[in-house]
Amino acid sequence: MTAPLKAIDGNADLPALMTDLAIQARAAARVLALAPPEQKDRALEAIERAIRANAAKILAANAEDVAEVRAGGATSAFIDRLTLTPARIDAMADGVATVRGIPDPVGAVTESWQRPNGMTIERVRVPLGVIGVIFESRPNVAADAGVLCLKSGNAVILRGGSDSFRSCRAIHEALVQGLREAGLPEAAITLVPTRDRAAVGLMLSGLNGGIDVIVPRGGKSLVARVEAEARVPVFAHLEGVNHVYVDRTAKLDMAKSIVLNAKMRRTGVCGAAETLLVDRAGAAATLKPLIEMLLDAGCEVRGDHAVQKVDARVKPATDDDWDTEYLEAIIAARVVDGVDAAIAHIQNHGSRHTDAIVAEDAKAAEKFLSEVDSAIVLHNASTQFADGGEFGFGAEIGIATGKFHARGPVGAEQLTSFKYRVHGTGQTRP
Amino acid sequence: MTAPLKAIDGNADLPALMTDLAIQARAAARVLALAPPEQKDRALEAIERAIRANAAKILAANAEDVAEVRAGGATSAFIDRLTLTPARIDAMADGVATVRGIPDPVGAVTESWQRPNGMTIERVRVPLGVIGVIFESRPNVAADAGVLCLKSGNAVILRGGSDSFRSCRAIHEALVQGLREAGLPEAAITLVPTRDRAAVGLMLSGLNGGIDVIVPRGGKSLVARVEAEARVPVFAHLEGVNHVYVDRTAKLDMAKSIVLNAKMRRTGVCGAAETLLVDRAGAAATLKPLIEMLLDAGCEVRGDHAVQKVDARVKPATDDDWDTEYLEAIIAARVVDGVDAAIAHIQNHGSRHTDAIVAEDAKAAEKFLSEVDSAIVLHNASTQFADGGEFGFGAEIGIATGKFHARGPVGAEQLTSFKYRVHGTGQTRP
Repeated sequence: MTAPLKAIDGNADLPALMTDLAIQARAAARVLALAPPEQKDRALEAIERAIRANAAKILAANAEDVAEVRAGGATSAFIDRLTLTPARIDAMADGVATVRGIPDPVGAVTESWQRPNGMTIERVRVPLGVIGVIFESRPNVAADAGVLCLKSGNAVILRGGSDSFRSCRAIHEALVQGLREAGLPEAAITLVPTRDRAAVGLMLSGLNGGIDVIVPRGGKSLVARVEAEARVPVFAHLEGVNHVYVDRTAKLDMAKSIVLNAKMRRTGVCGAAETLLVDRAGAAATLKPLIEMLLDAGCEVRGDHAVQKVDARVKPATDDDWDTEYLEAIIAARVVDGVDAAIAHIQNHGSRHTDAIVAEDAKAAEKFLSEVDSAIVLHNASTQFADGGEFGFGAEIGIATGKFHARGPVGAEQLTSFKYRVHGTGQTRP
Repeated sequence: MTAPLKAIDGNADLPALMTDLAIQARAAARVLALAPPEQKDRALEAIERAIRANAAKILAANAEDVAEVRAGGATSAFIDRLTLTPARIDAMADGVATVRGIPDPVGAVTESWQRPNGMTIERVRVPLGVIGVIFESRPNVAADAGVLCLKSGNAVILRGGSDSFRSCRAIHEALVQGLREAGLPEAAITLVPTRDRAAVGLMLSGLNGGIDVIVPRGGKSLVARVEAEARVPVFAHLEGVNHVYVDRTAKLDMAKSIVLNAKMRRTGVCGAAETLLVDRAGAAATLKPLIEMLLDAGCEVRGDHAVQKVDARVKPATDDDWDTEYLEAIIAARVVDGVDAAIAHIQNHGSRHTDAIVAEDAKAAEKFLSEVDSAIVLHNASTQFADGGEFGFGAEIGIATGKFHARGPVGAEQLTSFKYRVHGTGQTRP
């Protein structure tokens, strides 16, 4: 049985409610920052158990959410994102176990050195504080983001899409049960207890210093709004217009498997390739096989003149295609004059997310990796590796394309700051 | 001879001018990001030479600035901050040499690891981009900040106080001369070429993505304005309400020398102590000697009842005193119930800058260092060590109390971001 729905639509004094949530979250953050790793892991273990034990309750709440949006005429893609199944709940619980297994970042000494006067200085990881996570219809984000913040010693305020409100609330109950069992403050993981959309704007304002950073999880319009309105730092990427450049020195077989994987493994992820750049000097050997492979795999190809010539199925690319994140089985393709032209194209059209070069020439690869100003640059590997799990971070809260604080996959470490601890024996400054 | 003063007061189309500067700075930043360390060091060497060679020109320009503010009735403290002398110009040139000697942070691999599939991932330092530095009357900031940005591969847009405009312009000419000699773009170090105060507001807007971070250098009102208005990240501290806590286990001699140094070595620096907290359990032995030492050294003491009782010269502290950054020979002093009460006082009244404990008890020290949420926490050492030079960073552009990206002394490393470079042999994601 899910709790009754009173007070979830509209709220008499939302600003006061949100401010109060932030104050409680801040107090919880102070406790969490000093909580021993074992206590956080105990909470994570209890959360995993509670998610599995409450699966039926979570599914029932989710069924109500799904029924509501189905009645409202939602698309099947939307309904799929919203729908939980026993397997998805298992995956959510498994994710909690994975996060428990990550090394605790808090308190780690990342550097330490001694000064000539004998003082030692340590740089030590500390949590950031209170993280606001704004997401859309996928209810599992409540668990994924909640436990990653917990592991990194941060309090979190979760605001899910209003369509997934009942599902998020049921998941949140399991999270809170775990916190309680481990003796940690319940406000460490807070769910905004209303569907009122004005809550998002209040979170973006930073709640008078109550929220330290916002992480949006969802489509481009959500991220664009967050980036435009937030008065606090944001960890996000607006889009992933990712490129694979096939150099004249590339091995054709390797280029084929990387291009196919980068585009077609999963087309809807932010690390998917959207544009293929082929070196003119190698095009005689590589262009036709690459394009035919993509077409044969069911990928639409939108090409420049040179690409159009190799296969009648190629459609002409328009100017917009070079700047488009398709997230579908469509690729833009063009021929460029070597690595310099590829870098220039990426600088003009890329989104600073993830770009790859396929080349045997180490100098071309080095040039590409140095000069392409993206969070992730790869040599002879697929862009689909742009993922915290694939990087070995265990889990990620998202991928950031900004250059401040977090960049690339944002894992537990990137959710921390640092402080300097200085140990002296009575030193004074001359 | 300084250049004529045309076009420095007011500007017909300031937004267009500033946008143009930012575009040029961005282009320069791209060149600088890829410039080899030797080329940047060549520029630094040429800048050092140019500052020394142009000393007479810089002094003449400065004399004009000083004459103008003197005629305007400026305070002697203001005039002192503005005034350059041959010794101060030497110190500026020496500072350039010091920055040249810092290891180049760009390109440094800070972490690297191999994934089970054989891919290696490197985390490599890259510059941030374009840094906006807004400062007040001290013209040496133009050189200090300019060269630190150059060393770290960033372009910089400098906006000095309008009172120091001629001085900054003369220094800037030397900076540009050095860039030119080393074949680096002149826009790598840009001085806003107008005294129009509206330029500051435009910089705080971020100039449509033209500026990546703002560093304010100056008094509290400048920093407060920057923090309130900036639409881009800011590296700054609003104030340093720093504490020294003397635990019951402190050695009196050590406590005396640390307290005296922390408060009185230089009272006007942000690392100066402003509040003394004395453990009640040790007060019988430590309070009177500490307070008398401060009073005898010419420091005004504003104390709670317990502190007032030890010496008739102590003035009563008001509530405001606990939150005040004096930057003068004044200290607030009170007795607290042990390390927990000291931590609570600092949480309520501190500014998250620099706080110290004097104690022989390692557990009390550990508790203080863990729980005080400040950028720098020290055990048995003076708060006056809060300085990039003292930390071994060679130079600093300022001290940050925020938790994002840079915290504590902001040196060359903190002016960089990072990217992930992935090296594969054809890996695709399963």
